[in-house]
Amino acid sequence: IMWRALTHAAMNGVPQRGKLLTLDNMNPKVKRVEYAVRGPIVQRAVQIEKELREGVKKPFTEVIKANIGDAHAMGQKPITFLRQVLALCSYPELLKDNQFPEDAKKRAQRILEACGGHSIGAYSASQGIECIRHDVAHFIEKRDGGIPSNPDNIYLSTGASDAIVTILKLLVSGEGRDRTGVMISIPQYPLYSAALAELDAVQISYYLDEDKCWSLDVKELRRALYAARQHCNPRVLCIINPGNPTGQVQSRQCIEDVIRFAKEENLFLMADEVYQDNVYAEGCQFHSFKKVLFEMGPEYSSKVEMASFHSTSKCYMGECGFRGGYMEVINMDPEVKAQLTKLVSVRLCPPVPGQALLDLVVNPPQPDEPSYATFMKERTAVLAALAEKAKLTEQIFNTVPGITCNPVQGAMYTFPRISLPQKAIDKAKEEGQVPDMFYCMKLLEEEGICLVPGSGFGQREGTFHFRMTILPPTEKLKLVLKKIKDFHLRFTKEFS
Amino acid sequence: IMWRALTHAAMNGVPQRGKLLTLDNMNPKVKRVEYAVRGPIVQRAVQIEKELREGVKKPFTEVIKANIGDAHAMGQKPITFLRQVLALCSYPELLKDNQFPEDAKKRAQRILEACGGHSIGAYSASQGIECIRHDVAHFIEKRDGGIPSNPDNIYLSTGASDAIVTILKLLVSGEGRDRTGVMISIPQYPLYSAALAELDAVQISYYLDEDKCWSLDVKELRRALYAARQHCNPRVLCIINPGNPTGQVQSRQCIEDVIRFAKEENLFLMADEVYQDNVYAEGCQFHSFKKVLFEMGPEYSSKVEMASFHSTSKCYMGECGFRGGYMEVINMDPEVKAQLTKLVSVRLCPPVPGQALLDLVVNPPQPDEPSYATFMKERTAVLAALAEKAKLTEQIFNTVPGITCNPVQGAMYTFPRISLPQKAIDKAKEEGQVPDMFYCMKLLEEEGICLVPGSGFGQREGTFHFRMTILPPTEKLKLVLKKIKDFHLRFTKEFS
Ligand SMILES: Cc1ncc(COP(=O)(O)O)c(C=O)c1O
Ligand SMILES: Cc1ncc(COP(=O)(O)O)c(C=O)c1O
Repeated sequence: IMWRALTHAAMNGVPQRGKLLTLDNMNPKVKRVEYAVRGPIVQRAVQIEKELREGVKKPFTEVIKANIGDAHAMGQKPITFLRQVLALCSYPELLKDNQFPEDAKKRAQRILEACGGHSIGAYSASQGIECIRHDVAHFIEKRDGGIPSNPDNIYLSTGASDAIVTILKLLVSGEGRDRTGVMISIPQYPLYSAALAELDAVQISYYLDEDKCWSLDVKELRRALYAARQHCNPRVLCIINPGNPTGQVQSRQCIEDVIRFAKEENLFLMADEVYQDNVYAEGCQFHSFKKVLFEMGPEYSSKVEMASFHSTSKCYMGECGFRGGYMEVINMDPEVKAQLTKLVSVRLCPPVPGQALLDLVVNPPQPDEPSYATFMKERTAVLAALAEKAKLTEQIFNTVPGITCNPVQGAMYTFPRISLPQKAIDKAKEEGQVPDMFYCMKLLEEEGICLVPGSGFGQREGTFHFRMTILPPTEKLKLVLKKIKDFHLRFTKEFS
Repeated sequence: IMWRALTHAAMNGVPQRGKLLTLDNMNPKVKRVEYAVRGPIVQRAVQIEKELREGVKKPFTEVIKANIGDAHAMGQKPITFLRQVLALCSYPELLKDNQFPEDAKKRAQRILEACGGHSIGAYSASQGIECIRHDVAHFIEKRDGGIPSNPDNIYLSTGASDAIVTILKLLVSGEGRDRTGVMISIPQYPLYSAALAELDAVQISYYLDEDKCWSLDVKELRRALYAARQHCNPRVLCIINPGNPTGQVQSRQCIEDVIRFAKEENLFLMADEVYQDNVYAEGCQFHSFKKVLFEMGPEYSSKVEMASFHSTSKCYMGECGFRGGYMEVINMDPEVKAQLTKLVSVRLCPPVPGQALLDLVVNPPQPDEPSYATFMKERTAVLAALAEKAKLTEQIFNTVPGITCNPVQGAMYTFPRISLPQKAIDKAKEEGQVPDMFYCMKLLEEEGICLVPGSGFGQREGTFHFRMTILPPTEKLKLVLKKIKDFHLRFTKEFS
């Protein structure tokens, strides 16, 4: 009707002169934020999907999005027990229903009793529901062989993302040469660089050693730190273990070295451990920073300030949509902790369904409970399939001339190195694109496979990579690997 | 065991010398953040609850928390239909179950089909699930009498809080005299002042007129704006309608005046409309800023840049824990919108259960569907009870000498003015407290009622208020009102 005509321009976002808020006068820090995992290539993938639905002919019938660690989107089934309890919490009438096992009902009842008005629709305490924070603390104690965990140090969060940004917020200060510097690995998960841009902190890049299976070397940390001290105030060291996008699992020795380094150099440690169950390679094992810290004795465990992060999004659960997570802060000054508590209270609370889910993750069915067998079967199946796919990916990629791939020791990604012919590099530059973006865009257009270019995570100058998740079901993963192989050979030929 | 002894000091947060991160060197912007709704008084309330559980004798047996708009915590029951669909989405096995009505199943199926891998555990698009954004747009069109809404302008969010802070983030820039100024009402909902502190923007306070039922006067807007132009760059005008903490509902005329003012003065409008269903007073009606804007004709509707906010936390739903919400942006520069989309992608996506819930709110059961009658009955009962309690609150408070209370036209709060004897004011100052904090703390200790002092929201110099929600069940609300009345009389006598 009339409105349609009147407001056509306004409604369709046609650029108009004289906007109040423009690219030129908006927050410059926000403008500097980059987040490749959902960047232009993903937007093009969504567009192509639309075109396919509209009947546009393509050399493929389906876009496979291997750009993001989103297990359920790739067909992984939710763990039955988790969802039963969530259904019970959502609609407590079901507690009368005989189809639900007793342990699921018990968990749901306990969670509901801890909620305001016994409803997951009530705001919780900003730090998270108290009994869930206790369960998290017990989980950590058990995981770490009895090292105590204080529920007062646990903060539930809206996914790990939220907690990571919150801790960075506390730590950032200063101007000019006093600006806070934050050490992050390259390649990194781009949440870190994005948060640093937004907070106007200095990113200090340390490089993982691709030739040594993406391992972390304290010498490189030292190099990066000392160089950064010339122009900023380095205060924080971020570690991702198991690594995203690189898939390495740190050795106990390495973690000890890092902790010693952090103590010597007065750095606050941030340990991103969201992939702690995702360890596949033989001889590799997950060691939490907390555990190693405490095993190093009181001169470390009472000194080193640290926050470690976990999430419901990864591991065997893959429940990304619920936005559940927690952090544990260690040795944080009580006055600063009070500030942290105040800061999180502004956003009221983390999503309560995500908190409930987290409670099940840290307090799963026990051997004497009716859901135990099914739970273990489902959990084991997910992790075993991932281990198989990790191996498969490495093997197949390493058969392709021009692709070299480290073992996927853990996490959910491979980050293979690709050699690109000079002509392709020149062509990309001509088109104003970074070469690995050019490569990935072409792969998307020709094969319908959506990856993230290595440049989105950072890489050594002159090297090129892409990140691919290993999450697609085995048969589909094989297809993806074959398509990438064919494409890579074709691409190399085309530009030789 | 041994760990316990070794790490006792560290685990219990005993202050230690030589912390890296201290109150002195942490982010000063975070330090400036205040959030009274969950401030010291609430912390004391939680403590008192603990003491009661431990058997400590008090002049009351229960703490009544009337400090926060948390409907379910106050005993309001969730709407059946919403929770049925959420249970179905959580555990789709239940779709086979005959106990669920067909319309609930249909909604759940539609939501699941729009999720990656048909699971609410998958990340969604960062802007929110597409079909839900379409439903939101339809809802807005229907609400606003046919004025079109473009799904591309809808961004789902983690509660309204998230969307409000995100828009402020985009708008803030500059240093010194160029710093962005943001106009907020006094009294205000303290999310706004907290966000401005964190973003280092300038808060420009305009006062609502308590003598005219907390109405907004453009003359006062102009005064505040012109004064602020001397020292910053005012770019944004925030409005809360219906008002929190003040409970006023703006007239259509007032909204038109505000929009005209925003256009003349080149201000970006932020309309916080989370209480849009909470209108109780006769003669009052909710008018959305969007609708009024478009009814003012194309020179307004194609010009004024605006964002409006809604939430699943308030209205008849009260589903705060799910952290659902949306915003609609109008006339936003497409380049800026691209930046907004990028910015929200860093946090991956809003909680999917909250998105699902929002979908039911904007697409509730229709007259020809089986859940309609129950849904309407439940919805009407909640809103009718609130209307009754709004009236009751005003009436009772106005019988107390020294308390004056405007009608609660809408929202969920009353913000009565209290006169405090000079001796009480002096005594508070002696104890280093603001007088209304002193008053509320005493009320909490003596009667077990938790309110928020007016100073947490801002008030005219020399006046004192408190905020109380009207959410407790009628009988409990009557008790609360009586207790406050008795306390106020006693307090006045004590300090006279
Ligand atoms: C290393 C790492 N940290 C944190 C996150 C954030 O995940 P979420 O916010 O879903 O918990 C991710 C997600 O992929 C990640 O890979
Ligand atoms: C005026 C106003 N805006 C926004 C919010 C934020 O609510 P939520 O983040 O739960 O949607 C509230 C909560 O009380 C409010 O009163």
